[in-house]
This record gives sequence, C-alpha cells and structure tokens, in this order.
Amino acid sequence: MTAPIRLWDKGAPLDALVHSFTVGRDPISDLALVPHDCVASAAHARTLHRAGLLSTSDLDALLSGLREIHTAAGAGKFIISREQEDAHTAIEAALTARFGDAGRRIHAGRSRNDQVAAAMRLYLRTEVLRLDEHVSALIEAILTRIVADGAIPLPGYTHMQPAMPSSVGQWLAAHADALLDEFAASLDLLRRLDLCPLGTGAGFGVALPLDRAYTAKLLGFSRVQRSAPDVQNRRGRFELLVARLASDCGAIVEKLAWDILLYSAPEYGFLSLPESLTTGSSIMPQKRNPDVVELMRAQAARLRARPAELEWIIAKLPSSYHRDLQLTKEPVICAIREVEILLAVTRDVVLGLKLHPDRISTAMRPELYATDAAYELVRQGRPFRDAYLAVAQSLRDGTFCPPAQSTSTLRPDLVAPEQLAAMREELLSLRREAGKWAVRFAQAEQTVLHNPVS
Amino acid sequence: MTAPIRLWDKGAPLDALVHSFTVGRDPISDLALVPHDCVASAAHARTLHRAGLLSTSDLDALLSGLREIHTAAGAGKFIISREQEDAHTAIEAALTARFGDAGRRIHAGRSRNDQVAAAMRLYLRTEVLRLDEHVSALIEAILTRIVADGAIPLPGYTHMQPAMPSSVGQWLAAHADALLDEFAASLDLLRRLDLCPLGTGAGFGVALPLDRAYTAKLLGFSRVQRSAPDVQNRRGRFELLVARLASDCGAIVEKLAWDILLYSAPEYGFLSLPESLTTGSSIMPQKRNPDVVELMRAQAARLRARPAELEWIIAKLPSSYHRDLQLTKEPVICAIREVEILLAVTRDVVLGLKLHPDRISTAMRPELYATDAAYELVRQGRPFRDAYLAVAQSLRDGTFCPPAQSTSTLRPDLVAPEQLAAMREELLSLRREAGKWAVRFAQAEQTVLHNPVS
Amino acid sequence: MTAPIRLWDKGAPLDALVHSFTVGRDPISDLALVPHDCVASAAHARTLHRAGLLSTSDLDALLSGLREIHTAAGAGKFIISREQEDAHTAIEAALTARFGDAGRRIHAGRSRNDQVAAAMRLYLRTEVLRLDEHVSALIEAILTRIVADGAIPLPGYTHMQPAMPSSVGQWLAAHADALLDEFAASLDLLRRLDLCPLGTGAGFGVALPLDRAYTAKLLGFSRVQRSAPDVQNRRGRFELLVARLASDCGAIVEKLAWDILLYSAPEYGFLSLPESLTTGSSIMPQKRNPDVVELMRAQAARLRARPAELEWIIAKLPSSYHRDLQLTKEPVICAIREVEILLAVTRDVVLGLKLHPDRISTAMRPELYATDAAYELVRQGRPFRDAYLAVAQSLRDGTFCPPAQSTSTLRPDLVAPEQLAAMREELLSLRREAGKWAVRFAQAEQTVLHNPVS
Amino acid sequence: MTAPIRLWDKGAPLDALVHSFTVGRDPISDLALVPHDCVASAAHARTLHRAGLLSTSDLDALLSGLREIHTAAGAGKFIISREQEDAHTAIEAALTARFGDAGRRIHAGRSRNDQVAAAMRLYLRTEVLRLDEHVSALIEAILTRIVADGAIPLPGYTHMQPAMPSSVGQWLAAHADALLDEFAASLDLLRRLDLCPLGTGAGFGVALPLDRAYTAKLLGFSRVQRSAPDVQNRRGRFELLVARLASDCGAIVEKLAWDILLYSAPEYGFLSLPESLTTGSSIMPQKRNPDVVELMRAQAARLRARPAELEWIIAKLPSSYHRDLQLTKEPVICAIREVEILLAVTRDVVLGLKLHPDRISTAMRPELYATDAAYELVRQGRPFRDAYLAVAQSLRDGTFCPPAQSTSTLRPDLVAPEQLAAMREELLSLRREAGKWAVRFAQAEQTVLHNPVS
Repeated sequence: MTAPIRLWDKGAPLDALVHSFTVGRDPISDLALVPHDCVASAAHARTLHRAGLLSTSDLDALLSGLREIHTAAGAGKFIISREQEDAHTAIEAALTARFGDAGRRIHAGRSRNDQVAAAMRLYLRTEVLRLDEHVSALIEAILTRIVADGAIPLPGYTHMQPAMPSSVGQWLAAHADALLDEFAASLDLLRRLDLCPLGTGAGFGVALPLDRAYTAKLLGFSRVQRSAPDVQNRRGRFELLVARLASDCGAIVEKLAWDILLYSAPEYGFLSLPESLTTGSSIMPQKRNPDVVELMRAQAARLRARPAELEWIIAKLPSSYHRDLQLTKEPVICAIREVEILLAVTRDVVLGLKLHPDRISTAMRPELYATDAAYELVRQGRPFRDAYLAVAQSLRDGTFCPPAQSTSTLRPDLVAPEQLAAMREELLSLRREAGKWAVRFAQAEQTVLHNPVS
Repeated sequence: MTAPIRLWDKGAPLDALVHSFTVGRDPISDLALVPHDCVASAAHARTLHRAGLLSTSDLDALLSGLREIHTAAGAGKFIISREQEDAHTAIEAALTARFGDAGRRIHAGRSRNDQVAAAMRLYLRTEVLRLDEHVSALIEAILTRIVADGAIPLPGYTHMQPAMPSSVGQWLAAHADALLDEFAASLDLLRRLDLCPLGTGAGFGVALPLDRAYTAKLLGFSRVQRSAPDVQNRRGRFELLVARLASDCGAIVEKLAWDILLYSAPEYGFLSLPESLTTGSSIMPQKRNPDVVELMRAQAARLRARPAELEWIIAKLPSSYHRDLQLTKEPVICAIREVEILLAVTRDVVLGLKLHPDRISTAMRPELYATDAAYELVRQGRPFRDAYLAVAQSLRDGTFCPPAQSTSTLRPDLVAPEQLAAMREELLSLRREAGKWAVRFAQAEQTVLHNPVS
Repeated sequence: MTAPIRLWDKGAPLDALVHSFTVGRDPISDLALVPHDCVASAAHARTLHRAGLLSTSDLDALLSGLREIHTAAGAGKFIISREQEDAHTAIEAALTARFGDAGRRIHAGRSRNDQVAAAMRLYLRTEVLRLDEHVSALIEAILTRIVADGAIPLPGYTHMQPAMPSSVGQWLAAHADALLDEFAASLDLLRRLDLCPLGTGAGFGVALPLDRAYTAKLLGFSRVQRSAPDVQNRRGRFELLVARLASDCGAIVEKLAWDILLYSAPEYGFLSLPESLTTGSSIMPQKRNPDVVELMRAQAARLRARPAELEWIIAKLPSSYHRDLQLTKEPVICAIREVEILLAVTRDVVLGLKLHPDRISTAMRPELYATDAAYELVRQGRPFRDAYLAVAQSLRDGTFCPPAQSTSTLRPDLVAPEQLAAMREELLSLRREAGKWAVRFAQAEQTVLHNPVS
Repeated sequence: MTAPIRLWDKGAPLDALVHSFTVGRDPISDLALVPHDCVASAAHARTLHRAGLLSTSDLDALLSGLREIHTAAGAGKFIISREQEDAHTAIEAALTARFGDAGRRIHAGRSRNDQVAAAMRLYLRTEVLRLDEHVSALIEAILTRIVADGAIPLPGYTHMQPAMPSSVGQWLAAHADALLDEFAASLDLLRRLDLCPLGTGAGFGVALPLDRAYTAKLLGFSRVQRSAPDVQNRRGRFELLVARLASDCGAIVEKLAWDILLYSAPEYGFLSLPESLTTGSSIMPQKRNPDVVELMRAQAARLRARPAELEWIIAKLPSSYHRDLQLTKEPVICAIREVEILLAVTRDVVLGLKLHPDRISTAMRPELYATDAAYELVRQGRPFRDAYLAVAQSLRDGTFCPPAQSTSTLRPDLVAPEQLAAMREELLSLRREAGKWAVRFAQAEQTVLHNPVS
C-alpha cells in the first residue's frame, strides 16, 4: 500500500481544469508554511507518542525527517508539486516516502483542518515579531532624525493652510508615536494568537487520548483553543487581524509619504531626496521623481485590500470548515511580505531625507503667531473669545505684530528632551516584551524539533 | 460684544447650500457627544483655573452650566441648531449666553480639534463598555442554553456535508468562545484608547502653562497623548478600531444567524423560532419567515461598511487636521448603535430557539462515525493512513459498521463540565476587568463635574 | 374584517425590540419611494382591470387615491408610521381605509417583492436623470471657466514635480471629459434599468392572466424582466450600479478638490476661494480655511462606502428573496442625496475660484520646456533617445536654454477651439438623449396616473 | 552611446532594496502587455513616419522587430529582466539592441505614460471579449440544461422557507438572464474603452505634428481620448471597470454556487456532483466534498477585492500621473485570469450536475400552493386581502386543500418555449455584436503589424 499523493485520495480521477482551479497558487504560497508545519507536526508526533499511539522509534524517525524538511525549507530547497496541492500533503508524503509506516501514522488524531490552523498560527506569530523588528528599526531611524534635525522650525498646517509654528521634530515625533502604538497593539495581538488549535481535528474534537495541554506547551502556547468548532469558525480571522496590523502600519507610512511628497514639491522645497532614491522620466530629461515615496503611498493603499480580501472570503459562511477558507492563506502571506519591504524602504527614505532650512524659514510667516498673540492677551486677563476677535481685527487692519518670543518659555513647537526620553523608554519597553515572546518561540521550536525523545 | 454663533465666525456670509453641505448631519449625530463634551470641558476649565487663567467664580459658573447641559442632554432636551453646526459650538454658545465672559474664557488653551478628540475619546470608551455589556449578556444566554440543551446531539458538518458527531452544546460553545475573545480584545482596545488628547490645541500644542497630566487624571486617563500633531493625525483611527470591534462582533452573529437559518429550513428542521420572532408574507398565506435572523445577518454585513467608510475618509491625507476628519463621527456612532441593538436581538433569538431533537436524531447518520472507526483501528495499532483507507473501503462495500460507543470514554462531541466552567470563569474575569474601567470612568465623571472647586 | 396594519399580519404579537430592529430606518428612507410606488401601483391596478380582476369603479377609486397620495408625498405630507414599517404597507393601508374592498383588491397578482422592485426601479431611473442634470450643470460651469480663463498658463506636473507647460484650460478640460464619460455611462445604465419587474410576484410568477407587456408599456419600460426569480436575485444590484455611478462622479470631484487644495496652498498660491466658500478656525484668528473643498474630498471618499455597503448586504446569498435585501434601500437613497448636493456645491466652487496668474507665472520654470527642446532636436533629425540625453546633459551643465516658442505652431498646452467645440457638442448630444428618457418617463407617469379609464 | 537599460536612466545608482521595491512584480505581470505594446508601438511608429519623423527604412526595421517580439511573446519566449522593470523598457531595449538608431527614435512623441495607457487599453478590450466567450459558453451550458431538465419541479423558496412551486428551468434561467445582462454591459464597456490614448505624451500633449486620428484608426479605435491630462487622470479607472465586470460575473456564480451547495446538502438532496468534481477529507474516510463549488464561491468573494484594490490605489490623488498608478496593472490582470478560469469551471459544474427528481418531489409540499388557492378565490371575485386571510385560516385549521392544477392553464413555474427562445435570441444578438468588435480588433492588429509601409 503506497502513500497517496493527496491526503484524501482514494483513487478517482479529477478533471484537469478543476484540479488547476482547486490547487490555485497554493504550491507557491504554502512554502511559507512548511517550516511551521514541521514544528507543529513534531509536536503532534510527540503527543501521539505520549498517548502510546506512536512508538519511540517511529517518533525518532519522524522527528529526524521533520528536521530535515525544516532545514531544506529554510534553504529554499523544499518543493511542493502541483499534484500535492499544499504544504501539509507534501510533508506527509515526504515522511511516508522516507519512513513508510511511521509516515502513515502521523495523521492519527489530526485533520488537515487543525493542521493548517496550527501551521498558520505559528507562522503568524513569527511574522508579527518580524514586523515588529521593522517597526522598531523605523522608529529608531525617526528618533535619530529628531535628535539631529528636530529643532529645525517647520510651519504647522491645518487644512493645508499655515496654522502655528512647529518643528521637524514634532512632525516626525507624531509618526513615531503612531508606530509605537501599533507596536503595542501587535503585542496585544500576540496574546490573542496565543492559543493552540492542535487536537481539535476537523472541528469536532478527536476521540483519541491526546493531551492537548502538552501539545500547547511544547509549541510555546499558553492556552489551548478550547472549542473545536471555534478553531474552524475562526479560520481566517487571525489572518485578518494580522493583515489589518500590516495595513495600519501602512497607513502611518502613507501619511508620512504624503508629507514628504508635499514638502519636496518645488513650491514647498522643504526637503529633497538623495538621487539614489529618485528615478527619471522616459520623456522629460530634467526630471528626478520621488517614485519611491509615491510607491510607499500606493503600497499602503494596496495593503488595505488584503484584509478586505480576507473578509470577503470568510464572511457570511455558516459554522465549521468550508473549502473557501483555503483561500485565506495567500492574502495574509502577501500582506506580510509587502509591509515588511515597505517598512524597510521607509526607513531608508527617512534616513535619506535632505532638509532645506533656508526654504523652510521663508515659510515661517508672521501670522503663524496669531494664536500666540491671542494667548498673550489671555495671560493679560482678556477672555479668549475677545482676544481672538481682537487679533483677527489686527490681521485685517494690517496692524498685527507677532509677540516677542520671550513672553513665554513654553515651546510646544519643539520636542522636549523628556518627550524624546519617554519615546525611547517606550520603545525599549516594547522591545523587551517582544523579546520575551521571541525567546519563548525560539525555545519551543528548539525543544520540539531537537530535544531527545524521553 | 456678543457670542458668535459659530466658534470661528468673524462675520462674513456663507452660502446657504454650502452651509447645508458643511454642516451635514452633525446637529443630529453630535447629540451623542454632548455629555462627553461637558465632562471634557469641565476638566479643561479646571485646568485653566489651576493655571491661574480662570477665576474661581468663573469656574464655578462654568461647572454649573456644564452640569445643567449634561443633565439636559441625558434627558434628550439639549438641541443643536443648524446654525451652530456641532455640539462644541452649541455648548460654548449656551455657556456664553448664560454666563457671559466666563463662557468666552473657556476656549483659551483649547482648539475645536483637541476638544472634538477628547469628547470622542470619552464617548468611545463609554460605548466600548456598553458594548461589552451586550456581549456579556449574549454569552450568558448562550451558556444558559448550553446547560439546558447542550447534550442534544447534532451532526457536525464540514463543507455542509455530514462529518462527525457533535452536539448543540459544542455548536453554541464555539460562538461563545468567539465572543469571549472579542470581549478580551475590547479591553485591549480600552487600553489603547486610554490617553488624553486635551492640551494639544489645533495640533501644535498650546503656549499656555496647562498641566496636561492633571487634565488626564481628572478625566480618568492613565496617560496624555504625548505628541500634539499625533492627536490630529490619528483622528478617525480610534473610531476605526471601535467600528472594527462592532463589525467583528457582527461577524460572529452573522455566522450564528446563518446556522439558525439553515437549521430552521424545513429540510433540516433542527430548530424553529417562536412566532414572536417571525413575520409573514404579503402574498403567501402559509409563511412564517425568519426575517429577524436574516436581518441579523444583513445588519452584520452592513456593519462591515462602517469601518470601510471611516477608512476611506481618513486614508491618504497628509499630516495634521483637515476638515475631512469631521465626517468620521457619524459612521462610528452609527456602528455602535447598530451593533448594540443587533446583540440585544441576537440574545432574544438565542433564548427563543426551539430545538427539535427528533428531527436532529434522524440526521445522525452512521457514516458520522467513520473517523471513530478508523481511530478504533489506530488504537489497535494500524497506521492511520491504512485505517483510513480500510474504513473508506468498507463504506464503499456497504460493510461499514459504526464502532460501539463503549470503546472510548472520550466524548469530544459534548461540552465537558470543565469546559463550561472555564468559559464561565473567563467571562467573570473579563467582567471584573471591565468593571474596573467602569468604576474609573464613573468616578472621573463624578469628580470633574461635581467636586467642589478647591 | 379590517385592513391589517402590516401586509403579512395575521394577528400574532411581535416583540417590541425585534419590531424596532426589523423596521429600522425604513419609515424615513422609504418616503423617497412613495411617489414611485403610487405610479407602479396605478399601473398594476390598470393591469388587473384589463385582466377582468378589478371593476372599473374600483380602478377609478384606486387611481384617485393613488393620485392623492402622490400629491401628498410630493408636498411632504404623507407619513409612514413605524407600525406600517414601509411605504408599500402605508399606501395599501391608506387605500383600504379610504375605499375598503377596492384597497383589499390591489395586492392581487403582486407581492411586496415585485412591488418594492418596481418602485425602486422607477426611483432609480428618475434619480439617474436628476444626477445627470447636476453633472451637466457642473460641466457647463467648467466650460464657462475654460472660455474665460482657459489660456492662463499652468505648469503641468507629474509626480508633483514640474513637467511640461499646460494651462488652466487643459487642467479643467480633463475633469469635464471625465464627467462627460460618466454622463454617457449613466445613459448605458438607464438602458440596463429599462426592464419592468412587475408581474413576477414573490419571485416565481403569478398564476393570474396579467399582461406583463401592458404593465411595462404603461410604465415606460421597453421590456419586461423576463425571469421571475431573476427579479429577486438581482435585488440590490441595480442599486449597486447607481451607487457606483454616484461614487464614480465623486471620484472626479475628489481629484478636482485635491487640485484646488494644492493650488490654493500658499506655497502654490495659484488660486483662492471667495470668502463665502471658506470658514474660520476656533483657535487661530488669521485662518480662512477651504473646508468646503476638503468636505468635497471627504464626501467623495464616503460615497465609496455606499456601494461597499450594498455589496456586503447582497453578497453570498442563495437565490431568491431574503429579508437581507430590505437593507439595500437606504444606502442607495443616501448615495443619491449625497452626490447631488456634492455636485451642486462643486459647481459653486468651480464658478467661485479666483485665479492668480501672477503667482502662476513664477512657477512656469524654464525646465518645463526641456521636452520641447528635445523635440526641437528630433525635428532636426536626432534620434529621440539621443536628444533626450543631450538635453539632460545641458540641464546638468546649466547650459539649457528653452526653445523659442516660434519653432512650433503646435500648442498642446492650450485647449484648441475645436476641442472646446467637441466637448460642447458631446454635452448637447448627451443632454438630448437624456431628454428623450425624461420625456418617456414623464409621459408614462402622466398616463398611468391621470389617463381616464378606458 | 548605448541604449540605456531603463527608459529614464541617466546613470546614477539606485539602491538595491529600493530597486526591488519599485520594480515589484511587474516583470511577471507585464508579460500580459507585451503583445499589445508591440501593436501600439507599431501604430506609433507608423504615425511618426507619416509625420516625417521616421524614415521608411527605420519604420520597416521597427515593424519587423515588433512582429518578432509579438511572435516571441505569443510563444512565451519574451523575457523582461528585473533591470528592465517593465514591458515597455524591454521592448524598446530589444529594438535598440537590434536596430540601433531606429530603436532610439521610436520614443519620439511618446511618453511611457501614454504608452502604458495604450497597451493596457488594447489588453483590456481583448480580455473583455475573451471574458464574453466564457460568459457565452456558460449561458449555453445553462440553456442546454434547461432544455434537458427544465421541467423538473423545484420548490421556490423565499427566506429559505418553501414559498411557491417552481422548476429547475426557472431556477437556471434566472442565472442565465443575469449573465446575459453582464454580457450586454460588457459591450457598453467596450464602447467606453473605445478611445485612443496615444499622442498625449506624459499628460500634456506632444509638440510634434502627430496625426492622432490616424493612430486611433490604425488601432481600431473610433475616437481619440481628447484631453491629454485626462488620459493620466483616468489611469486605473478603465482597469477598475473591467475588474468590476469580473467581480459582477463572479457574483452570479457565487449565487449559483450557494444554491448548488444547499441543494446538494443531504438534507435537501436535490442534486449531486459527479465524483470527478468532488474531493475527499484527510481525516474522514466517508466524505466526498463539493470543494470545487465552495471554491467557486470563495473565488467570487476574492474577485471583489480586486476592484477594491484598484480603487484604493487610484483614490485621492491629485490630477496627472503619479507612480502610484503603476500598481494598477497587477490587480486587473489578476482579476481577468481568475474570472476566466472561474467561468470555465462553473460551466463544467453546470454540465456535471446530477439531479434527483425523487428527492425533489418529496419537497413539493402542499402549502406551496397556498397562493394559488388564494388566486382561485380572487378569480371568483374575492378581494385578495380577504382571500389571503381565508387561506391562512384554512392552513391553521388544517382544512387547506391545494387547488386542482386544472383551474389554470397558467404555468409560471415553468420556462415557456417563448421565454427560452427569447433568451437564445438575446444571446445570439450579443454574440453578433461581440463578433463585430472582434473582427475590428483583429483587422487593426493585422494592419498595423503586417501591412506594407506605403
């Protein structure tokens, strides 16, 4: 009896067009899941062994096979054929080809349904941490620029009209704070992802004495995902949460990109990009275009379609597994790859920006100080609303005169040292927390793949 | 000098069509913000007083005025005229009309930009807690049904085809667990919302000696929102997070609704709705239709458009305030109202469901036990893949015979008592945490509106 | 036997919360459908009469009643109570209250399902024509500005970097051409809407001898909607098409709004808005903000959520009518109202724009003519790629010299008279075609409501 | 002087990460555009020749080169390197490598901006016609099934509750009519696409004496796209229209898929799929799952994300070209490929469906005839509303008796021969119109690539 090519195969033919349709792009996108399925499969094999359903020698064989596949996948050498359809089939087939019966035993107490959920969960938590590294590096780049150039004045705009004095530091600090918030949210998300789906089978549990808490612990999860149908009901939802995180990081980059595009328009001229970050025109010899920054904006826009795609796929389905859910893998894998390169490029752009203080200074018009003038009157006891109208009148009369800066030691236009220190402390604290997750995940992977069988 | 009708009014005419366009539906939807603006304005007034920019008698006057408006708004008696445009103008106008100069002093050190952000932040955190009450009540209703009817068998389906034995309890428990996860996520969201925007003015800080930490503490926030431009950059994003939470709760209801609609189709006949939850047809005399459940599904669908609307409005804008952001209020207010009635109706439906065990039992076909039969062979030592093929063959041959249930004491088809206990404990724990937030918010409101001026 | 309040009512109670949930906002939004339901009901009554299922006196009574309701609705005096739920019930109830048996006869051969579809179809086709009037008026405003100011130069930008010489005329003409394309598309949409759903009942036809072609002709439709289930399957899809049209018109306005916001930033200073189209700031006395234009952009963004909402509601439903479809009315009604005021305001803005040729002229930098310089070399026989590199080199060297304009009589930067004439001709032609539809619809309404019973 | 690798290259380095980011997946997805760029380039070369800007021998050389590339691309043998970035650069590079100066001359009077627009326009119109072939084949499959099995009864459902008698024919005809409407809409779309963008350069026209009407005619377009900025302003919008068409076709398939999944659930048992169209389970030996049909539904859902992706990318940009627009190519190419395989698979499924009339007949419950019974009373003179209540009462009493079918010769439950004939006629008429477009496009391609230079 030979190993079937497809996990469910009992021999009947399947139409070629239909096969191509059902397989889709899985053999490519599933490659991202192979190492994670190896880890999850190793934990499942150990659980079967503990339950007396797998011999020690079979377990040893399976673990060595999974280690090999894990290594091959890491080196880009593991291939999923179109006949195999997906990562999970390819791995079981490789184990069976190599070890025979041991391979045929590994799927006991498991369904492709909980197997996919487990591999995807491991993938997602790993990628959230990797995303955090990119977010962290981008925040650091911003902090570096604040230290170097933060005190350069910048007009504060509202409605794209000059409003009040501000600074390069305050402009950049806002983006850093938004990123810090996403970093913190990513750690909330890791807590949400921290539950182990293995042992729930096709969605109705497994009538074998598997110790689910043991499996969870092996894989570095704090909890099992209690309800078996819930594991399938929520297929795609964790993917959606990660895709939203990617999209939300994109939205911050998008706003920064728009700012850069405006400020580097010649009419503003506040900053420019190094030539290495611009491209030319096929028709206009004079052009150096900020394509990179426009593509940052466009990539951020595109990232919003990934959670939408996921939501369309998973929406309006009754409970339990439906094959629709298979399509949830690609959009999140795509979103993760896209956001990671986006964040890396954004970091380069932030570090590469050339500021032009001379051009900026001509934009620091006197009327930016109108509110300060009103506040001067408020400090002298005038009701704000009266002060506001008085200053407005002086502006119309042409008698307006910006207040001498010495009237106030308050400089909300600048990033204060304690503001910068607080940002740094928050970043460090988030990195420490992320680091703990990283250690937990690495130890689990090490243990489950490499620990000797007890 | 009289109080201007509009905060920014210096006297020029504004075209009527244009006025109607800019005001939009704000005078209606802003009513939801009035009580929260009263609270935030009281905190701001106290901060001005502490900074020596408001006399004790002016503060007393403003606090009494804000308490009155707060009470009137609670009773549905505060009106925003179309000329006033929004809640914030209406409140300042009422204070000025009543107290003159004191009213004209309250806007010192504040912009409508941070004022709106503060009122909205208070509104959102209040509504998240209210949403949690509805989620909690729905979970309780589900737990009640699990206790009463959980042991009734139910076929487990995958691909809408019979899969394995399950139960009413397992079916319902999955939805409860999904709701518990949203409840937990809502508490993460409260932490994310827990930062005070007041004191950031139009987005560039305020050159008056306002003690932002004091304002934050008065309002029951743990932190100030550090960066002034960030407050405006993130306008709409907290709204988006709350709208997503509403939409995610809707998605759980949607799945439950689909299940109910399927199970109550006469071809299934597993359950029915009481007549009080069905409606008739205008043409077919025999019909009792599950309109309510269909509208649950449709309302869940519609809820997905609210975060989309928010995201369209806030996307692709440069930094700082733009008037676009004004439109972010309505969709989130709409989403909150819609999800709250949706959850309340869903609770009624869950409690009203009538189960038909006789019809269900005819659907418990023998082949549901095919996997159990394969596991029986696994327990006897057969590799799973061989056992799987052997059982498949017996099904084709017509020789399949479901295993006697006694072969295993494992009953993954049922909700175990410890599973139920764990759900209850989790619910209690979440309610305790939500309760702490509720107490903090109530105390802040009490303090800021009612504490005597020191 | 009294007329039931709800069309399907057979007497059982309905929970109050549930009633509020099922009714939703229909009693308000359905008001838009009342006149159209009167027209459709009159056509249905005439068809019943022709089939011998309604006496001449009953028909006379119903027609006079429908005329009265039609008039009352036009004057804003027809009310739908929450008990009645929707327009259709309210109208039948009014007819029955007034005429007894005649009212009880009108629903023969009709279901609320085809009744709603018919009223909505009439509403949509009417509103598409009204939308076209707004589009037409906006195009005319643009053409007026082109005639007056089209020759004023304007830098052409790509990537927000100066590219080539252009003009105010070319800038505006692009928006006009985009609007002309939507106008043409709206006429395609009218052809798509041009099929009559009446006579299909609940979705399975009607076993009464109704002459569907007669009904269609009465209502000014060219065709019947052939398949009865198709009428219900496509509920929401025509609404979706109209909401997309509104959203697509919004997208054109959005781009124009962005242009205006950029060009009116003081760093550009190419144009400004009259004071009647700007508003002030609550904190900054000096500000005149282009809120109106920002709200144009935001409203366009919001319009994209309307088709999304519709698509979420109708997606992923099996064939036939489901109550979900009831929710399809509000988003399209909302979209139509929003786009109409948006287009009217945009027209005001276009007419109100003040151009500043002096500021523009300083932005007409020499390098805008780099491509023309390369073309000069091309005309002299150089391969373009070599000419391109030569000009690029001269720009780097500082030896670049823009070509004398006299070398070419070609002025692609300007709107040529024949271009303007072609736009005018296209607008006229579209208006003629729209006018034919308008006449057809008006005649149908006149005939069906007012023609004497033959 | 050698041909630059990138059209805009003047020699400066570009960061590797940034290059990878800016190139993205274009070298793969752009392959779809190569043949169309060859055709458009040939037309442009002929136009240059006519304007005296290209010698006859250079034109001959370029045409032969473009024919070769066209043939190579058709055979899958044309490659775009990552250094070349896109189809347009690769083609110009190949021409220059082969023919030197002639290659360097082809870009005169053209920008990559109008070049991309032209290639995409040709691609889109070609693919719309190919889509129509799939739609047409699916409609034919449905008509075949109606002829064969249309008279088999089927309960008509509303709210998933039994409503009235219907038939397999009426069920299928509704889907065919919806597809016919999309077919017709696709022809409207071809008219909308029928305008030639070449000659507009970067978006501001070209100061060379190019005969745009001649170019348009060569390429089989009826009109030039008048306004130069409009060509760039609308980049992505034609793509959006085609992606919507794909998504709308998907929505019809989605509904059909849901119907099939319901009807093939064992509780319905109305139909089943041949084994060649089902797959198995990795854990449950007994299962044959309708994965193919679930993936039809999921693919339809995913198709909705393509227009959303496009709309996110193009939304909220000021006028003129921005690099963001580069990202508009992939989603529409993806949508087209996905919808074509989806329609082909759906056709296989429709032809493969096995109906089970015995199971259906047990579902034809007497109460389906309740409305007919009411109509019987109406024919006898009772007001419908009274008849409705009388029948409802008889159903409650248990005295209801379905009317003898003989009382009416009307059979709205069946597809009448004239209904079928009308569908066939409409299909033929649409195919004739599509055929005319196909001939026009083929002749243009033949002429422009192969006609001797005059």
